[in-house]
Amino acid sequence: MFEVHAYAATDATKPLAPFKISRRDVGAHDVHIEILYSGVCHSDLHQAKGDWGNSTFPMVPGHEIVGRVKAVGSAVKKLKVGDYAGVGCMVDSCRECESCKKDLEQYCLVHTSFTYNGTEQDKTTPTQGGYSTDIVVEERFVVKISKKLDLKATAPLLCAGITTYSPLRHWKVGKGQKVGIIGLGGLGHMGVKFAKAMGAHVTMITTSEAKGADAKRLGADAVLVSKDADAMAKEAASFDFLLNTIPVSHDVAPYVALLKLDGTMVLVGALTPIDAFAGGSLMLPRRTIAGSAIGGMAETQEMMDFCAKHNIVSDIEMVDMASINETYERLVKNDVRYRFVIDMATMPKG
Amino acid sequence: MFEVHAYAATDATKPLAPFKISRRDVGAHDVHIEILYSGVCHSDLHQAKGDWGNSTFPMVPGHEIVGRVKAVGSAVKKLKVGDYAGVGCMVDSCRECESCKKDLEQYCLVHTSFTYNGTEQDKTTPTQGGYSTDIVVEERFVVKISKKLDLKATAPLLCAGITTYSPLRHWKVGKGQKVGIIGLGGLGHMGVKFAKAMGAHVTMITTSEAKGADAKRLGADAVLVSKDADAMAKEAASFDFLLNTIPVSHDVAPYVALLKLDGTMVLVGALTPIDAFAGGSLMLPRRTIAGSAIGGMAETQEMMDFCAKHNIVSDIEMVDMASINETYERLVKNDVRYRFVIDMATMPKG
Repeated sequence: MFEVHAYAATDATKPLAPFKISRRDVGAHDVHIEILYSGVCHSDLHQAKGDWGNSTFPMVPGHEIVGRVKAVGSAVKKLKVGDYAGVGCMVDSCRECESCKKDLEQYCLVHTSFTYNGTEQDKTTPTQGGYSTDIVVEERFVVKISKKLDLKATAPLLCAGITTYSPLRHWKVGKGQKVGIIGLGGLGHMGVKFAKAMGAHVTMITTSEAKGADAKRLGADAVLVSKDADAMAKEAASFDFLLNTIPVSHDVAPYVALLKLDGTMVLVGALTPIDAFAGGSLMLPRRTIAGSAIGGMAETQEMMDFCAKHNIVSDIEMVDMASINETYERLVKNDVRYRFVIDMATMPKG
Repeated sequence: MFEVHAYAATDATKPLAPFKISRRDVGAHDVHIEILYSGVCHSDLHQAKGDWGNSTFPMVPGHEIVGRVKAVGSAVKKLKVGDYAGVGCMVDSCRECESCKKDLEQYCLVHTSFTYNGTEQDKTTPTQGGYSTDIVVEERFVVKISKKLDLKATAPLLCAGITTYSPLRHWKVGKGQKVGIIGLGGLGHMGVKFAKAMGAHVTMITTSEAKGADAKRLGADAVLVSKDADAMAKEAASFDFLLNTIPVSHDVAPYVALLKLDGTMVLVGALTPIDAFAGGSLMLPRRTIAGSAIGGMAETQEMMDFCAKHNIVSDIEMVDMASINETYERLVKNDVRYRFVIDMATMPKG
């Protein structure tokens, strides 16, 4: 065990503050990463504030972790000292269940160890996340990152990236398809980049004209303002696929109406109840609503390689570790284009 | 044009009564069917009572129509005089759109002519349904019925049958799959028979123990009483496919929880709003909710052939034409095992 500097919430009512945590020694299959950058996900804030009722304290948030490999165990094959590496929302799973065997560790039937506010496979030891200087993770849960990419801008790929990449791949989005990305935030801006790189015709569906303009800069072919009922009616039953990144409860009916026969809308943002909608709207024509959570580790590596090939990273704004509480305030106000990333060099080491 | 005896609702407040309608002369592509039996679908009642706000009167309900071919046009190839034939929920469509070209006429992008309470392709001439002695329909919208089957018990296949068969086929239900049929009524009892014949392990999911027993008689391998929270919890995340035949608004959350990773629940009953449910329940694990409406004509023929091969018909109770209003009252009370069929020989011909 060794001690590292971190930032933690000590209970739901207090601001985050400097804190020290222990990391385990590097085992044969482990990778020790010196964390250089840590993305700030909206879910960090929810969990630090106890919004979901499942928070345990002290809590070191952060599941968009990138850095440099500092040491590897004797059995590690994929990574070597000096490589760039990333850790996302999970640090372990049972590895033996039907889901794990399919490389879908996020759906582990036994126990997924989430990167923070979770527990190790013993279901007891708390996990602590990326707002820290170092982390030790088993090789399977570490991805290698190309040095061609701007490392700090790859941090959000570990959550916002894979959350949007995975459903686009699973539902086979590609050339000849008309795809809508609903909502332009941390997730949505990655959805636009990926869907475009996969060859689809991409429409940004947003409440705001201004965001539409920015979506075009990101690669969107078209913009549909969801508050414009006439424009929405014109696009009825025309989309093959919709990626719905809206992070809060909302009425899905106007979006369902956009789907053509056998079209699919995938929810990746709203964990909370989506409003009641007519069953008949899924019948005439036949339509599908699904959900998706992050992606398995093999797919996360595939995404990183896809990003290297297509030169895709996240649009970020760098912040200091000590400003994390102000950063959360800006997140609440949606004042971010499109993801905050903490420069871990700014970690106070008093 | 020729005149035929029928039973019609003349407005939403009045009981159905004898009525005369005209049928078109038999064109080159038409089939003239002497209607022997007409199934009674719950939607007949809703439309006759104006419950959906889209009713036009006078209205002759009935879209589960079977009988004997009385005449065929010169270009008709599939059927000949004397054959048993059936007509379901549609009598025409544009035939040229993307949906029609895929043999999915029910999702016609231009205009599906529903069998009654609809209009012909001119979008003006009202269509009139199966509570009548004769009907003339273009060959594409007529299916051939094997004489091996009990004709009167095949009538409900044209709506209740295809509505359940189509999603089971589309989502490739078969051997090695654990399938749940939710709700045991006209649709549900066909769902059990089809899913079983397709080789799946079939669980009837019902509110009632008594219905469970009958489901086993119909072929269900297991029964899950949805009011039994412990039993439901035990079956959590275990189903590959759920066919939800509940015909009214309801809370889908307890059923969604039954789906395993990549499991799908298809709604075929509830046109009205289904209650709000947590988006997160579709994410962990990845799950799908879809809808489906009847089936295309090619698939309806395929279903009829499947029924002949597996000796599948509907469980029915015969009623007289003149008792239709009492029959509707029994339908409201759910007093039917599992489908009413009108014997058209009882049509009053005053």
